[in-house]
Amino acid sequence: MAISNIRYGEGVTKEIGMDLQNLGARRVCLMTDQNLSQLPPVNAVLNSLAKYGINFQMYDNVRVEPTDQSFLDAITFAKKGEFDAYVAVGGGSVIDTCKAANLYASSPTSDFLDYVNAPIGKGKPVTVPLKPLIAVPTTAGTGSETTGVAIFDFKELKVKTGIASRAIKPTLGIIDPLHTLSMPERIVANSGFDVLCHALESYTALPYNMRSPCPSNPINRPAYQGSNPISDVWALHALRIVAKYLKRAIRNPEDREARANMHLASAFAGIGFGNAGVHLCHGMSYPISGLVKTYKPKDYNVDHSLVPHGLSVVLTSPAVFAFTAQIHPERHLEAAEILGADIRTARIKDAGFILADTLRKFLFDLNVDDGLAAIGYSKADIPALVKGTLPQERVTKLSPRPQTEDDLSALFEASMKLY
Amino acid sequence: MAISNIRYGEGVTKEIGMDLQNLGARRVCLMTDQNLSQLPPVNAVLNSLAKYGINFQMYDNVRVEPTDQSFLDAITFAKKGEFDAYVAVGGGSVIDTCKAANLYASSPTSDFLDYVNAPIGKGKPVTVPLKPLIAVPTTAGTGSETTGVAIFDFKELKVKTGIASRAIKPTLGIIDPLHTLSMPERIVANSGFDVLCHALESYTALPYNMRSPCPSNPINRPAYQGSNPISDVWALHALRIVAKYLKRAIRNPEDREARANMHLASAFAGIGFGNAGVHLCHGMSYPISGLVKTYKPKDYNVDHSLVPHGLSVVLTSPAVFAFTAQIHPERHLEAAEILGADIRTARIKDAGFILADTLRKFLFDLNVDDGLAAIGYSKADIPALVKGTLPQERVTKLSPRPQTEDDLSALFEASMKLY
Ligand SMILES: NC(=O)c1ccc[n+]([C@@H]2O[C@H](COP(=O)([O-])OP(=O)(O)OC[C@H]3O[C@@H](n4cnc5c(N)ncnc54)[C@H](O)[C@@H]3O)[C@@H](O)[C@H]2O)c1
Ligand SMILES: NC(=O)c1ccc[n+]([C@@H]2O[C@H](COP(=O)([O-])OP(=O)(O)OC[C@H]3O[C@@H](n4cnc5c(N)ncnc54)[C@H](O)[C@@H]3O)[C@@H](O)[C@H]2O)c1
Ligand SMILES: [Fe+2]
Ligand SMILES: [Fe+2]
Repeated sequence: MAISNIRYGEGVTKEIGMDLQNLGARRVCLMTDQNLSQLPPVNAVLNSLAKYGINFQMYDNVRVEPTDQSFLDAITFAKKGEFDAYVAVGGGSVIDTCKAANLYASSPTSDFLDYVNAPIGKGKPVTVPLKPLIAVPTTAGTGSETTGVAIFDFKELKVKTGIASRAIKPTLGIIDPLHTLSMPERIVANSGFDVLCHALESYTALPYNMRSPCPSNPINRPAYQGSNPISDVWALHALRIVAKYLKRAIRNPEDREARANMHLASAFAGIGFGNAGVHLCHGMSYPISGLVKTYKPKDYNVDHSLVPHGLSVVLTSPAVFAFTAQIHPERHLEAAEILGADIRTARIKDAGFILADTLRKFLFDLNVDDGLAAIGYSKADIPALVKGTLPQERVTKLSPRPQTEDDLSALFEASMKLY
Repeated sequence: MAISNIRYGEGVTKEIGMDLQNLGARRVCLMTDQNLSQLPPVNAVLNSLAKYGINFQMYDNVRVEPTDQSFLDAITFAKKGEFDAYVAVGGGSVIDTCKAANLYASSPTSDFLDYVNAPIGKGKPVTVPLKPLIAVPTTAGTGSETTGVAIFDFKELKVKTGIASRAIKPTLGIIDPLHTLSMPERIVANSGFDVLCHALESYTALPYNMRSPCPSNPINRPAYQGSNPISDVWALHALRIVAKYLKRAIRNPEDREARANMHLASAFAGIGFGNAGVHLCHGMSYPISGLVKTYKPKDYNVDHSLVPHGLSVVLTSPAVFAFTAQIHPERHLEAAEILGADIRTARIKDAGFILADTLRKFLFDLNVDDGLAAIGYSKADIPALVKGTLPQERVTKLSPRPQTEDDLSALFEASMKLY
């Protein structure tokens, strides 16, 4: 497994101009979204670029929860600019968009579908060299600064999918916890739920030595390898931080210790799931986001309806872990204990229920919408949600327990109402 | 911080021929030592090279505890061979020698001292590109497969020093726990003590934000950054594995679970100290090894006297941690607890004594020689031992507590006898 470079510390963003100088960058593309372009994280980067006289162009048109079209717009900008380095300042939406822009600008004759995950795209391996990309995460969520993944919403198919290749992993992630202080409550909550699910899913994913097919040539193995003793370290550590700090980080924007810890947990969980993979919560989240009707989350300063990624993964988590627990019940119980359950008298066969209840309580305490019904779905949508999950094999195959279409229907149904 | 690629699993060595094919290697240099060249780990590599038709030359002349001269011999071999890839099969001695061979063969006009750590050498930054190096560790000790460090004994100066640069970090580490099964008892013990000290020293090293000078340009910062929240995860995890498995691994060569866990712990601790650094046990170990008189350790199949690296670091550990504890007493107490001490009624100001006692008991149970006196040193040697420690600033500066020459004398004196 490979792990990215990261630099951590309050204020380390001020060094980014020097990093770009060290890279010999002469034309830098700075990407962000319109909301962030007015906020302190982008300011800190701009100051450093100015101080070191870095020549750059800014693209602040990233769409929150990107689409194929918004990726293409950014790619067009990148191709025109002929950049020799990229800087992404934002959450997963910005970092993912920047990865795609760098990839297709570096491979200008490729068709957009070439690198998109199969079976939706062609899933071709990346063989062109990319330009350096420095990621400056501003949410504590996706861990995208550490992963070779870029996710977007394929509008035509109404489903989220992505690009997955070690080649698009950022060259450097600058984890500066000061950037998390400007996040409003729901953004902290939803991006934190993403960390929670990355940790839980990668810890319970199919073990690396049970995955099949396992291509005999290492070069053909997917980035997602299944749970393994190394990703376990990251997943458990991230889960412990989430248990200790997520509520504090959500409730008190001044709690620097909590916000800084969540910022690190996001990268830790990213390293974990970037190697082990995620499974059902993520596989099922893609149609939940992709089929969004009119839901507009609080605190998101955007003009379109959307289900924030972290919310779309966490809403099915009680049902998913109740379903998967029969495979690794000890790990499910351990996770429940870390999240605060008293398991002294627990029976191992109840592991799934116990973890599900613990998650429900956790979400209830944090005022999370009461299930898929609360964000606009009804029973009638279940066939479409299942259909949108089927092409997500890349992740659903990593579920420790195989699922039929009926199983998926039941999981969506059980997630309609949580409390 | 940067972390290497590693692949873990029983039997994964058989893929190495494919890895070399994927790298397009046409002339491979296989390095090992004369003892290992007769043992299963080298056999497994040879089988895979044969299966995939890899063209290679073998160098089995690595010296256990390498010297400047033994490095130079390997470098001469590498220069002549004009290799395009390297494979190192062995403990730290082999992997370190192979790193040096790759470096100087890739930079043929450099003087040997150019890259050696200052103040002994010139400590020049490495700017030449190196060839890929695949490391296959056979001890559970140095973690050299994950670090940018190569250590040798500078005979003329009678002191160990090294080369430290991210550029010499192996491209891939293949961690195949089957290779640990052939280790005799004392090699398991001594290499395991190295893991123990890597974990303890990196966890207690000066925190990253207190290190000075901190070069303002990130490119000039040393590989050793001081303890930080990321290296802490690795150090603590490695320490827990050592506490649980080291004794079992030493006592029972058939205990595959224990040996496999120690093999992983070695890499984990390597990732930790490779980023955070080590401090006094390591700084003081270099003259302890370098000034060796006639000590010949049991189970080492070699013709010269030597103090195995792991033994040379662990013998001062009780004295060192009693000395450093006043700076981070909680961390020292936490380490003692992980190693089995009952700290329920412990006073924080006793943290150093408690950790020192715990270490002494740990070493006593494992039949470790009773201090520096037992390996041939007396009070009269202390001035020379102190003198040999002074140039080890690269690590001694990472001690949480600064030390005078008198402090160092006292630490050596306190380490003469342990029990
Ligand atoms: N690449 C990966 O590995 C990976 C993993 C998980 C999710 N994702 C993807 O990432 C996207 C979600 O990213 P996200 O959760 O980080 O959120 P986001 O990037 O979508 O941002 C959400 C909102 O928060 C705002 N925001 C971000 N940082 C802020 C700050 N510091 N202060 C104030 N406002 C701030 C943004 O402007 C935006 O309005 C989804 O598309 C998801 O699918 C990617
Ligand atoms: N590069 C780093 O990061 C780093 C860190 C710590 C120490 N070191 C250096 O590494 C060296 C010590 O390395 P080490 O402790 O791994 O031991 P080693 O490489 O010196 O080997 C010790 C002995 O064990 C034998 N051996 C190794 N594996 C075996 C196996 N599987 N079965 C049977 N015998 C086996 C060897 O043949 C040798 O005789 C020292 O020079 C030390 O300074 C380097
Ligand atoms: Fe996610
Ligand atoms: Fe060591």
